[in-house]
Amino acid sequence: MTERERILTGIRPTGSLHLGHYAGALENWVKLQHDYDCNFLIADYQVSDYADDIAHVRQSVWEVVLDWLAVGLDPEGSNFVIESLAPEHAELTTLLSWFLPLSMLERNPTLKAEMAALEGGEDPSVERKPVPVAFFTYPVMQVANILMPRAHLVPVGEDQLPHIELTRETARRFNHRFKDVFPEPRAKVGRVPRLVGIDGNAKMSKSRGNTIDLKDDAETVAKKIRGMYGGPPRGATEPGDPDENPIMLYLAAFDPDEAEVAELRQRYATQGLPNKELKELLTKHLNELLEPMRERRAKYAANMPQVREAVEHGTKRFRVLAQETMEMVHDALDMNYLEQY
Amino acid sequence: MTERERILTGIRPTGSLHLGHYAGALENWVKLQHDYDCNFLIADYQVSDYADDIAHVRQSVWEVVLDWLAVGLDPEGSNFVIESLAPEHAELTTLLSWFLPLSMLERNPTLKAEMAALEGGEDPSVERKPVPVAFFTYPVMQVANILMPRAHLVPVGEDQLPHIELTRETARRFNHRFKDVFPEPRAKVGRVPRLVGIDGNAKMSKSRGNTIDLKDDAETVAKKIRGMYGGPPRGATEPGDPDENPIMLYLAAFDPDEAEVAELRQRYATQGLPNKELKELLTKHLNELLEPMRERRAKYAANMPQVREAVEHGTKRFRVLAQETMEMVHDALDMNYLEQY
Repeated sequence: MTERERILTGIRPTGSLHLGHYAGALENWVKLQHDYDCNFLIADYQVSDYADDIAHVRQSVWEVVLDWLAVGLDPEGSNFVIESLAPEHAELTTLLSWFLPLSMLERNPTLKAEMAALEGGEDPSVERKPVPVAFFTYPVMQVANILMPRAHLVPVGEDQLPHIELTRETARRFNHRFKDVFPEPRAKVGRVPRLVGIDGNAKMSKSRGNTIDLKDDAETVAKKIRGMYGGPPRGATEPGDPDENPIMLYLAAFDPDEAEVAELRQRYATQGLPNKELKELLTKHLNELLEPMRERRAKYAANMPQVREAVEHGTKRFRVLAQETMEMVHDALDMNYLEQY
Repeated sequence: MTERERILTGIRPTGSLHLGHYAGALENWVKLQHDYDCNFLIADYQVSDYADDIAHVRQSVWEVVLDWLAVGLDPEGSNFVIESLAPEHAELTTLLSWFLPLSMLERNPTLKAEMAALEGGEDPSVERKPVPVAFFTYPVMQVANILMPRAHLVPVGEDQLPHIELTRETARRFNHRFKDVFPEPRAKVGRVPRLVGIDGNAKMSKSRGNTIDLKDDAETVAKKIRGMYGGPPRGATEPGDPDENPIMLYLAAFDPDEAEVAELRQRYATQGLPNKELKELLTKHLNELLEPMRERRAKYAANMPQVREAVEHGTKRFRVLAQETMEMVHDALDMNYLEQY
């Protein structure tokens, strides 16, 4: 029997998850979990407002776990891992930081954009926060996250591709200079790399308040869709560009009937379709998608000790792998002082 | 019985130690070890050429341990600790880095100077090296080093005072925001904060090749002193400023007879003293100081398994303390996920 390839992917615990997470990542994870040894990481070391609201970070860990269970991730077949409960991450980050030049971080485009956003950007009305050291160095920790289980594949969002490139470069350098320890991980971007918000904003995100959450009940979903932005003003039977209407984009993303989507887009572009009708159809499809998730979520939420135990077991299994990696790293770096003499 | 105060101090393993280390630090440590619970750290995570020459770092750890034993540090009464064998350091560094603003590092004067030096400064003949991430962030790890055993006192060199201030600030912030975990450590500068090199350079340092090492044999010491810089050119009986002559400065630092030193300085300033005579006197005093060290060093070097075991025990005792601290930190930051529900 050949060893299966390993996956590492994860998310920062900032609150419950939404359709953007589902279409961009979770849906993919659910499929991949059958063919790979999966490690799903809750990156609680890496929340930028960590120090400001620890209670929220702690609570969000369980929200994320419940959402993962809701979408159908299997916590026994895969490892659900709380990052801070595997301090090997911190150790590997420390060691790697001797081999990564500072300039690698300084030229990282994602990091640059995020730091500017954290500092409040150009907008004088946004409160300017000091950037913590960890925020500058978290890409090194992301590299350590991926290398820790010696992952082969990393399902990520499009904006995370520079981090994967950094990881591949780090793996190559380490293997070349010391010993062959790390596979060079491949990236895999989800089906819908970026989902627009219900307000038409380019990205669905909690901070913009434009999300449909996986745990929203049927009435909340219906209500959010009724208030959803429906593209540039247009008469009910006036043709339009389907790619300018978030409702059409959501249907393309979440209507499982591809023929129906193709026909709708065709009709929308040529003879027009009333938003009201489209919204009703979207509500139906979304609630069909979300209903089984809500049921699973409720079932698990009623039994939190079992959920806690699943995470405990996943983290424990992950640490066995992590400690194996750290032994290989210690050996490669000749850190076994006490075996000398 | 009241608990004794704790000391944390340490050194980076870059090679064997010299008189500058002794007068600036070790001599002090030897005295303090009787009144404090001491933790002497070999900071092997923090060597700037780590990646370039790991074998040298590894070997230097044992050189430092032997030098510590040579000067009379007691590895049973105190803890000799290899930093990388207590990965709690990496974990605490990671956690602290969320609470320390990046600007704190950017304004650190020691760090600025060191980074400029590492990059080769203005001198085009010096090979420019990329600055590793860890070099930029090591002050956070130094803070973690000191906080790890919840130290009360830190004997340091003068140039390290900004790091102690950063540590005090971090302890205050942490205690104020979360729970009262860390004492605010006091700094204690050694008797001779900075020893000039035998070439007259402002600082004795291995990289300048101007050291007298603690392990140098009597003949080597005599030879180095014969070639030592003796201040601005001056006739043998011409008066001079004793503070401009390294030989006089060394006598002030290492001649245990204070009255003799006072008289020599007086004569030097008024009627002059031939360097040859001063060098012979210095050779005598230094070899008297170093001879018992050489003997102890040789004794231990002949029994490395015992040395290894002493370090193993010290590191183990330190980790008990470190894990106690980490439990307090986890509690303060409410990181005990698995105790929920």
